Amino acid sequence: MADKSEKTKARLPRGFADRSAEDIRAVEKMMATIRAVYELYGFEPVDQPMIEYTDALGKFLPDQDRPNEGVFSFQDDDEQWLSLRYDLTAPTARFVAENYDRLPKPYRSYRSGWVFRNEKPGPGRFRQFMQFDADTIGTPGVAADAEMAMMMADVMEALGIKRGDYVIRVNNRKVLDGVLEAIGLGGEENAGRRLTVLRAIDKLDKLGPEGVKLLLGPGRWDGGKEGEGDFAKGAGLNDAQAEAVLLATARNAQAGQDASVSANAVYQEGVGELATIEALVRAAGYAESRIAMDRSVVRGLEYYTGPVFEAELLAEIPNDEGQIVRFGSVGGGGRYDGLVSRFRGEPVPATGFSIGVSRLMTALKNLGKLDISDVIAPVVVLVMDKDTESLGRYQKMVADLRAAGIRSELYLGGAGMKAQLKYADRRGSPVAIIQGGDERAKGEVQIKDLIEGARLSAEITDNAEWRAARPAQVTVAEGELVAEVTKILAAQAEERVK
Amino acid sequence: MADKSEKTKARLPRGFADRSAEDIRAVEKMMATIRAVYELYGFEPVDQPMIEYTDALGKFLPDQDRPNEGVFSFQDDDEQWLSLRYDLTAPTARFVAENYDRLPKPYRSYRSGWVFRNEKPGPGRFRQFMQFDADTIGTPGVAADAEMAMMMADVMEALGIKRGDYVIRVNNRKVLDGVLEAIGLGGEENAGRRLTVLRAIDKLDKLGPEGVKLLLGPGRWDGGKEGEGDFAKGAGLNDAQAEAVLLATARNAQAGQDASVSANAVYQEGVGELATIEALVRAAGYAESRIAMDRSVVRGLEYYTGPVFEAELLAEIPNDEGQIVRFGSVGGGGRYDGLVSRFRGEPVPATGFSIGVSRLMTALKNLGKLDISDVIAPVVVLVMDKDTESLGRYQKMVADLRAAGIRSELYLGGAGMKAQLKYADRRGSPVAIIQGGDERAKGEVQIKDLIEGARLSAEITDNAEWRAARPAQVTVAEGELVAEVTKILAAQAEERVK
Repeated sequence: MADKSEKTKARLPRGFADRSAEDIRAVEKMMATIRAVYELYGFEPVDQPMIEYTDALGKFLPDQDRPNEGVFSFQDDDEQWLSLRYDLTAPTARFVAENYDRLPKPYRSYRSGWVFRNEKPGPGRFRQFMQFDADTIGTPGVAADAEMAMMMADVMEALGIKRGDYVIRVNNRKVLDGVLEAIGLGGEENAGRRLTVLRAIDKLDKLGPEGVKLLLGPGRWDGGKEGEGDFAKGAGLNDAQAEAVLLATARNAQAGQDASVSANAVYQEGVGELATIEALVRAAGYAESRIAMDRSVVRGLEYYTGPVFEAELLAEIPNDEGQIVRFGSVGGGGRYDGLVSRFRGEPVPATGFSIGVSRLMTALKNLGKLDISDVIAPVVVLVMDKDTESLGRYQKMVADLRAAGIRSELYLGGAGMKAQLKYADRRGSPVAIIQGGDERAKGEVQIKDLIEGARLSAEITDNAEWRAARPAQVTVAEGELVAEVTKILAAQAEERVK
Repeated sequence: MADKSEKTKARLPRGFADRSAEDIRAVEKMMATIRAVYELYGFEPVDQPMIEYTDALGKFLPDQDRPNEGVFSFQDDDEQWLSLRYDLTAPTARFVAENYDRLPKPYRSYRSGWVFRNEKPGPGRFRQFMQFDADTIGTPGVAADAEMAMMMADVMEALGIKRGDYVIRVNNRKVLDGVLEAIGLGGEENAGRRLTVLRAIDKLDKLGPEGVKLLLGPGRWDGGKEGEGDFAKGAGLNDAQAEAVLLATARNAQAGQDASVSANAVYQEGVGELATIEALVRAAGYAESRIAMDRSVVRGLEYYTGPVFEAELLAEIPNDEGQIVRFGSVGGGGRYDGLVSRFRGEPVPATGFSIGVSRLMTALKNLGKLDISDVIAPVVVLVMDKDTESLGRYQKMVADLRAAGIRSELYLGGAGMKAQLKYADRRGSPVAIIQGGDERAKGEVQIKDLIEGARLSAEITDNAEWRAARPAQVTVAEGELVAEVTKILAAQAEERVK
């Protein structure tokens, strides 16, 4: 097996990542905070498996121009197609449809977990990532949508994001649907073109109005100039139609700007629902600085049918390349009245919100809001003598420390004293325990304060301070081990607070 | 979309399950306890994605008699095969091999997550399940194995399992390897037969010595009688060989019972390592009642190379069918010196332990050790008037309650008063808030104590108690809402403690 010529290459498939201890702890901390807010709002945890029947998930992903359309799929033994979930909403819809009669209605639930996209990976674009969703299913009332927006605002503040550094933007798909109907793009036969419009608008931030106008009209070259990159087919709108769409989806668009559109019933319904949501959130004390009505929000997923929301970080944060940027969207959602219905054959209105966990975690880390310095590395008991009896003695010291709740470990490698101290240093250990033959004979044990030791060697120039410092090493009787380590750890904790 | 004839059937693929709020909370609680023990032992969290290159995972699963050999696999765009991980050990080996130089060595890490088996599902046998592992990589010393056994014993007690209700059994693959070599089953050419022996021994609990002897010899009919069920080919051992194997793998087998075996060097090495492990755990204060040497433990996975462990619950617990049974194995592990090496072309010894999360959770629930009754359902603010202004008022009450940290929600459905109270009841709500037109006019709000209300209606026969009870309903000024609800919840909490 150890023949180099035959060895397997250890490598990750593209678009997948290992997670470090630091990231895991940061995510745990962040998710506990989000969970507490969801619970405060009366939502209950529930979760679904990662594999579902392909037809149960449906096909609602944007940009499905690759053969397997964005989803990892495979056939089961009985020839049926299975897929890895691409979001948490589609499995939730399947679950609620399957268990509808026994669930309280409206049904408030939350869930977190990994989802998978079989897409071309890129920087910050993974094929496995984590979402944290909340959904209210079984009510058509936009009070449920208003609550989603308020909950997201509360999540942001619970995470330590200052008021003014975030905003929840709210719009309504019906507004855009009404515009499209008014300009002659209604009806089943135009479904494809409407989707192209939707995805064009969703790229407003990236491409600007000029680029979007090309996508609404004749189409656009990826590279920005004719012949550069791939050609994306446009929705084929004429100039007047494209202008109507751009006018209605400008960030500060107001009702009544365009008379031919304003008369449309679907448009009016959308505008009316937005007004109700605005009244509800204001009554509950959420100002425009926290929840803003914004006609430019559309969201890329096809399945939204009414209000849509987006949580945006306004704070300027260093990105992964160290540039200071507006961080942008960290989550979003909306009303998806068709998703449960397609299983039930009866209307089951629903609304929900999804947080992109890794993205939000990156933002919070860069904002300094995910401090995990309270995790203390283990005390290491070094190994001088390697016979079984000595190992047993060292092991007993570790067991005693652990019994006192002190995180600690026996050095398990084969290295000498110097390398063992290097190991403890690499681990960030606060304390190392040493017992060689001499100490053993006297029933004693040596305790090194590695934090104080490091500080002393850094400050060796200042003799006055040296004398005032606590000693970086003490020798105590074996029976005093736990008490002395406890004392040193307490002193280190006090030092950290300063 | 709501046409019944076209609707999609909402159903889960076989072998997959949704998880309830109760199970999620119980698992969270259990895993927090396990995590704390792993951390106490100096292990650090790390995790790997769910998808790996198929060749990186290797093929180490038992019972791979189906076409895709137990693993969910699919081809990537570049034709390379990807698989869903079938355990956490194989991805860990890949990760450590890939990042070897930058990791502290020995490298102590832990991880939890879902794993997938493309196997025939059955009762309690899922195709997606959760494991919680700890591994020490980079040391050949059995002190690392001894520590795994001690950590598992500590995990059991941290979870509230009484001493005597569990045992960690320890054996060594080298003991069996030595026996097989001694009876002439050594060498590469017998690898297949050795695997058959291994899997036969692993079925000792299920089939008894007679059944196992058939599997060691000519083979066995699944149904127990000739012609019943499928025929499983045996290892082809003769009677003397089979007896030697059974003698060496009897629960209380001792070294020296079989002279021809005792002389084998690999056997001796295995026995010697076991003696060292035993000395180390005893020195650290773990008695035989907690960690027992047991020659019958083999573990079904092919990749183990040295010490193997199994955590067994001895407590008699109702199983899913309500029968009182010894619960059996809730986790296991062992030394897998070849797994990292196969990537590195140099020896990288490793040992680890894996807990079956769902199985252990079921056991703990049945033992009454996972109390999650501290989760209080939300206060529900009922909706009498449905105009936007009234909804805004109700929403404000909810916002005030939440701001005071009280879990609460606005009723978001369309039902009348009676159905709303039924909803609150179904949710297990402690308190319902009501404000109709009359109360509104007086600036008041009605608060129903639903717990006390239920108790009162159950005890309605006792008039003295009725008078002594606190009232199940009060009317207070709007401004008193939060204070009054806080008071009622506190009274309920006090009642629960009694």
